[in-house]
Amino acid sequence: MKRNLFITFEGPEGAGKSTVLARIVELLIEENIEVMATREPGGIEISEKIREVILNPNHTAMDEHTEALLYAAARSQHYFEKVEPALKQGKLVLCDRFIDSSLAYQGHARGLGIEEVLSINEFAIGKQMPDLTILFDLEPEVGLARIHAHSDREVNRLDVESLAFHKKVRQGYREVVKRYPNRIVVVNADQSIEQVIDEVWKILKEVVTKSK
Amino acid sequence: MKRNLFITFEGPEGAGKSTVLARIVELLIEENIEVMATREPGGIEISEKIREVILNPNHTAMDEHTEALLYAAARSQHYFEKVEPALKQGKLVLCDRFIDSSLAYQGHARGLGIEEVLSINEFAIGKQMPDLTILFDLEPEVGLARIHAHSDREVNRLDVESLAFHKKVRQGYREVVKRYPNRIVVVNADQSIEQVIDEVWKILKEVVTKSK
Repeated sequence: MKRNLFITFEGPEGAGKSTVLARIVELLIEENIEVMATREPGGIEISEKIREVILNPNHTAMDEHTEALLYAAARSQHYFEKVEPALKQGKLVLCDRFIDSSLAYQGHARGLGIEEVLSINEFAIGKQMPDLTILFDLEPEVGLARIHAHSDREVNRLDVESLAFHKKVRQGYREVVKRYPNRIVVVNADQSIEQVIDEVWKILKEVVTKSK
Repeated sequence: MKRNLFITFEGPEGAGKSTVLARIVELLIEENIEVMATREPGGIEISEKIREVILNPNHTAMDEHTEALLYAAARSQHYFEKVEPALKQGKLVLCDRFIDSSLAYQGHARGLGIEEVLSINEFAIGKQMPDLTILFDLEPEVGLARIHAHSDREVNRLDVESLAFHKKVRQGYREVVKRYPNRIVVVNADQSIEQVIDEVWKILKEVVTKSK
């Protein structure tokens, strides 16, 4: 059985990625397409243990290079233990965030360099890049407003810093799109969730049908 | 105060690296040179925690890419938390094994590729390569014989496999020397320990004096 397609969903928090992904899985199943949805660390024990090292509150002295390598290591294990075997079994794999998140957040927004972060992440996944990536594009103000929609706190200094950071993330994603114009499809996430699902489903249905 | 020199000791087990390093530290101290000797993980908590993930006996499914990234992550934290601050305080730093071990063992002997392993390790240390590396060169047979000198077991299949692997490691180190002919000095480790100490001390004394 031939290796199936590996499709990733990218974009900021509040863009609706996870909601859309869940609905897309249902639509694929209705079409009798074998699909596996995942997100790192995805229940993989080694990746979970690595996350614990990253997130341990005692590890305040962690260097940003160390952190980026640990994220890449957790990605590597999740990829080789879970994603690649599913692809080889003929399953379509959808992953909520993957390599482009590292490029946009750590590479661009945190300033480590997109090329530098790419090099360690290419190593992590044996240069097996996703076949297709859906990027949920959204004004940072809209994303933040959605995140805080159920909160009653006023806008504070933290939100302002957060806004500057989210603007950098968006710019980072745009740099990544420039690097991979054929792999990444940008979807306007500032529409109703139904509209976004329709748009993503059209893209996926065409790609999945073509690959059969 | 200017950043001092970072010097690494490399070579197979049984080559006498640690013994020579300890003696060199004494000689440097006699010359009133401020020196810090270390080896990874070097008491750095984050690096120790990463090692625990690597060495956990339950983690038999660990992919070799994941493992290489974890070693690079542990190296990164040890470097930025311990080595670099000491260098900036003006201390001479001697490190027992460093990046070239990963290139020879993982890159060449384990087959991950020297360039690939180099790329993640350059990222790990912010491209700050050692200023000087002493490579203890030794016939694998001699190294293995020294390791087993205090053991009374006979040569078995494991030793034969081990010999093939150690031959690859030596070949790996030779590839690394070709890549960095100016940084790495090869010392013949198949001499008495006193002779090796003399040879290494001559090299170091000249380099350290020149840099003053």
